Amino acid sequence: MNFDLFFENKLDQLKNEGRYRVFADLERQAGNFPKAYVHRNGEVKEITVWCSNDYLGMGQNPKVLEAMRSALDEHGAGAGGTRNISGTNHYHVLLEQELAALHGKEAALLFTSGYVSNMATLSTLAANMPNAIVFSDSDNHASMIEGIRHSRAEKRIFKHNDPEDLARLLAQAPANSTKIVAFESVYSMDGDVAPIAELCDVADKFGAMTYIDEVHAVGLYGPNGGGITDREGLSDRLTLIEGTLAKAFGVMGGYIAGSRALIDFVRSYSSGFIFTTALSPVLAAGALASVRHLRNSQEERVAHQAAARKLKTKLKAAGFPVMENDTHIVPLMVGNPTCCFYASEHLMDKYGIYVQPINYPTVPRGTERLRLTPTPYHTEADMDFLLDALDDTWNQCGIRAIA
Amino acid sequence: MNFDLFFENKLDQLKNEGRYRVFADLERQAGNFPKAYVHRNGEVKEITVWCSNDYLGMGQNPKVLEAMRSALDEHGAGAGGTRNISGTNHYHVLLEQELAALHGKEAALLFTSGYVSNMATLSTLAANMPNAIVFSDSDNHASMIEGIRHSRAEKRIFKHNDPEDLARLLAQAPANSTKIVAFESVYSMDGDVAPIAELCDVADKFGAMTYIDEVHAVGLYGPNGGGITDREGLSDRLTLIEGTLAKAFGVMGGYIAGSRALIDFVRSYSSGFIFTTALSPVLAAGALASVRHLRNSQEERVAHQAAARKLKTKLKAAGFPVMENDTHIVPLMVGNPTCCFYASEHLMDKYGIYVQPINYPTVPRGTERLRLTPTPYHTEADMDFLLDALDDTWNQCGIRAIA
Repeated sequence: MNFDLFFENKLDQLKNEGRYRVFADLERQAGNFPKAYVHRNGEVKEITVWCSNDYLGMGQNPKVLEAMRSALDEHGAGAGGTRNISGTNHYHVLLEQELAALHGKEAALLFTSGYVSNMATLSTLAANMPNAIVFSDSDNHASMIEGIRHSRAEKRIFKHNDPEDLARLLAQAPANSTKIVAFESVYSMDGDVAPIAELCDVADKFGAMTYIDEVHAVGLYGPNGGGITDREGLSDRLTLIEGTLAKAFGVMGGYIAGSRALIDFVRSYSSGFIFTTALSPVLAAGALASVRHLRNSQEERVAHQAAARKLKTKLKAAGFPVMENDTHIVPLMVGNPTCCFYASEHLMDKYGIYVQPINYPTVPRGTERLRLTPTPYHTEADMDFLLDALDDTWNQCGIRAIA
Repeated sequence: MNFDLFFENKLDQLKNEGRYRVFADLERQAGNFPKAYVHRNGEVKEITVWCSNDYLGMGQNPKVLEAMRSALDEHGAGAGGTRNISGTNHYHVLLEQELAALHGKEAALLFTSGYVSNMATLSTLAANMPNAIVFSDSDNHASMIEGIRHSRAEKRIFKHNDPEDLARLLAQAPANSTKIVAFESVYSMDGDVAPIAELCDVADKFGAMTYIDEVHAVGLYGPNGGGITDREGLSDRLTLIEGTLAKAFGVMGGYIAGSRALIDFVRSYSSGFIFTTALSPVLAAGALASVRHLRNSQEERVAHQAAARKLKTKLKAAGFPVMENDTHIVPLMVGNPTCCFYASEHLMDKYGIYVQPINYPTVPRGTERLRLTPTPYHTEADMDFLLDALDDTWNQCGIRAIA
């Protein structure tokens, strides 16, 4: 068999559908976010990034950088082993304590990424608990879907953010099954929020475990930055809260928080946790500084929400198809992968504005979009420049007429 | 259902079998490897680490630390997004080029860990290639096993390092199947080496793809540090070479190298690559400096092999049960999880020597061991002190008499 020919055919499929991905080759500028340099067509030019998930710009926060510099100088580059075999460093221990406190839980556990934390935890729970059935929101992230799939447990998909549909499915499940209800708080591509209390009410009624992914909410919502569950005082309703250190906290890595027994169980049984090199002490130190800062500071959260509101208001006033939601995510519907791709190219080439096209399978086909993520560092002038550029782009690309 | 009770029962099982893991809470000292501080029983004391996979001490290499410091100052803490959505930085691009060159391949692809690179790549290949059957060495790492399992493809396990058994199994496979032969170069717990040329001969005869995991060999073997395939001039016999940035290279992350089409296929189709935040630019910059250094410097590799040889010679001369192999790994057989645990505790408490017990499921039951990893920074005095401590420990713990 000619393996390369097979691969090339599969790549041609993507190209023909207009969803072959080309990565922007960037250099972000610490101290000057959201500016970055892009390497493109043999040139390097300065651009404004409008699609980062470093929502608060904590990736350039001086406390975070200083903590990382200090850990690097004192402890070196890597962890040097798995958590069990010489790879645990004191920053891991402190960070796990901090994350447990952030969510009002007894314990927490670090993973190398949010993806791995979902995949490893859901697969470990659903594979080990007796007669497990996972009740999964229809819009759950790929990492949750893969984790459930890997467990080989049964899965029931409930309608997105629909407690009634969840209740209907739970009622059909055998009494002796272990029921795990898995959902997100903020859905990253639409920016909508789960009815957490209602979903927990239903779960409680059927004795189900509740698993929430707060990766697009931790650091951003609640008086401590503990996410939507923190904002709504619901942390204790969730059996397990999963989060990331790579978005609002600005660094890298993922985690779960829950009861001491649950965390120790995942720590002790999860292949994806056990058999991998631990997070670099440099990352753990940076994340620790970031979490500590955002537990006490409201400034970034307030500025972030204000930036998102302002951008939405401006876009709506100018007639752009902003998808409605109550969060910081500003999706502009395009509805076609090719238009989406050309809009992104036009913005980059003509205006130095970088917003990546979001295509299938990240979003359903026909709902391709530009997803804008304003940060506290995007100025009003940046926004007005973006609006002018979008106006030209919408006209140039022949995207549907502005309302 | 009382979830915590279930978890506690599962944890009690581990405790009863003597294989409940307690992590050593460490602070490695950059510039002073293999020394570290351990937080233990409310105290902090200095110890010597004898079980790190930072085999060459590159985690404290000044070039690596300087590259990381510079990236941190210039570009900040995290990548800020997935590779596709604003998370690619120029270090990723340069590092992928460097890794491709290291292995004499057209292209390379970064992952957040070696575990993820195996899991994501094997699952993507085996799930997508028509009628795939994976032929997997019986001693393959957990990350490979999980990747194959996740693909839902058929699997045949061949006897460890046995080309004849592989040939027997390949001969039984349907002609129209896609055959993927997956194995490691250096097996980390025994330290033995695969007969790579012979396995490739068999694979070629049956038109099979060859997938090698070189995580315990990259940086350590071959004139460029490209692993055993580099040392034996076999890189072009492998369809795909997988490696890590977290062991000999001293940082964090994993990768694959192969043809341009193969790498682009995995890049475009693998959930575990697509839907996760990219490696921090700090890590990528450090890994780039480390790979570049070890492509040109033989000094660390020579000193590493000399240290391993010297330690093995001393241990054998003193009658300790060293497991034979031709690599840098020095396993001391204990054969019982409880003895192994107490030996490790005794070494730590009485001598400040840290060597983690290796128990099931990392190794088969009954082959529990202490796995020593001498580095260029372990002195002859460190070795002699270790030998005295082991002598006392073997007597104290009543492990089988020294031959």
